[in-house]
Amino acid sequence: MKLVFASNNKNKIAEIQSMLPESIKILSLEDINCFEDIPETADTIEGNAILKADYVTQKFGYNCFADDTGLEVQALNGEPGVYSARYAGEQKNADDNMNKLLEALKNEESRNAQFKTVITLNLDGKQYLFTGIAKGEITETKTGTNGFGYDPIFKPENFDKTFAELPLETKNAIGHRGKAVQQLIDFLNATK
Amino acid sequence: MKLVFASNNKNKIAEIQSMLPESIKILSLEDINCFEDIPETADTIEGNAILKADYVTQKFGYNCFADDTGLEVQALNGEPGVYSARYAGEQKNADDNMNKLLEALKNEESRNAQFKTVITLNLDGKQYLFTGIAKGEITETKTGTNGFGYDPIFKPENFDKTFAELPLETKNAIGHRGKAVQQLIDFLNATK
Repeated sequence: MKLVFASNNKNKIAEIQSMLPESIKILSLEDINCFEDIPETADTIEGNAILKADYVTQKFGYNCFADDTGLEVQALNGEPGVYSARYAGEQKNADDNMNKLLEALKNEESRNAQFKTVITLNLDGKQYLFTGIAKGEITETKTGTNGFGYDPIFKPENFDKTFAELPLETKNAIGHRGKAVQQLIDFLNATK
Repeated sequence: MKLVFASNNKNKIAEIQSMLPESIKILSLEDINCFEDIPETADTIEGNAILKADYVTQKFGYNCFADDTGLEVQALNGEPGVYSARYAGEQKNADDNMNKLLEALKNEESRNAQFKTVITLNLDGKQYLFTGIAKGEITETKTGTNGFGYDPIFKPENFDKTFAELPLETKNAIGHRGKAVQQLIDFLNATK
């Protein structure tokens, strides 16, 4: 079976392929000659993952999966959420985003937050949504250089280091994205 | 395999059992002598579904699934969300909740909303989150007598009737809960 991952990130694609049997061949957007910008205009994380997967399935006819990720901060009623990447503006700068978030939480007591990744899978006319969550809290300052995005200010539950200080293998094992990917992989391995 | 559904609703339990092979025996909370109130204190829909499933698995040692549902209104930044059942107060009255929501949307242009059901499945040490979404809009007035909760003011996408006017079979086929249940069933049928 051919299955499109609505991404052109070669690392992500190789990672997923390595967890699946050869009978499932993962294709990138490039592989199916999809070079247009896929809309990400939904107002929820789930909505964006659905938009991307549906775009590929409806326009190109492939089984497909797509992911979207956001950081939900309790004291900010779940913001920045679906707008995490462009929280401080369309320049999508991680440092600007973190500064804005630290400022927004300056006078808040609760610093609880969670990362959430949703993967939408369109498979043989059915749609599945897998969700991975990593709970934790927003630190007062940026620490660490691994990872990307909000990792330097996110301390996962039960750890005393930020995602940006933890080794990639640890982040993958306890992280939101790793958890969602594992559900997708288990499902595909069981059904295909 | 025995699998606990963290519920005592006999209709819901019979519905799920009817979609699974006999080798998977669905147990209610009563069946496992769990009579306490399971906490639903999380601040997200996902969080409550996880709390409930984890409570049963950790305290009683069973594989278990639990669901939680909320209505997310775009103009209200996703509220009432996890607080849908008690939006107008702890009396959890559907009419009070609908009145409060109609009032809150009185001067809003957008009436877009979505129902979301999350099912958390704890299975053999792994956790899976399945999500079902029904998009639609909040009507100006209450119409229809079927269903419960916000159904009389929720008009699903592509329909000109509210959930409370549609036959139960239609609501199950296009609804948030039905979609989440179907993902759970497909997963269990494939893996067990």
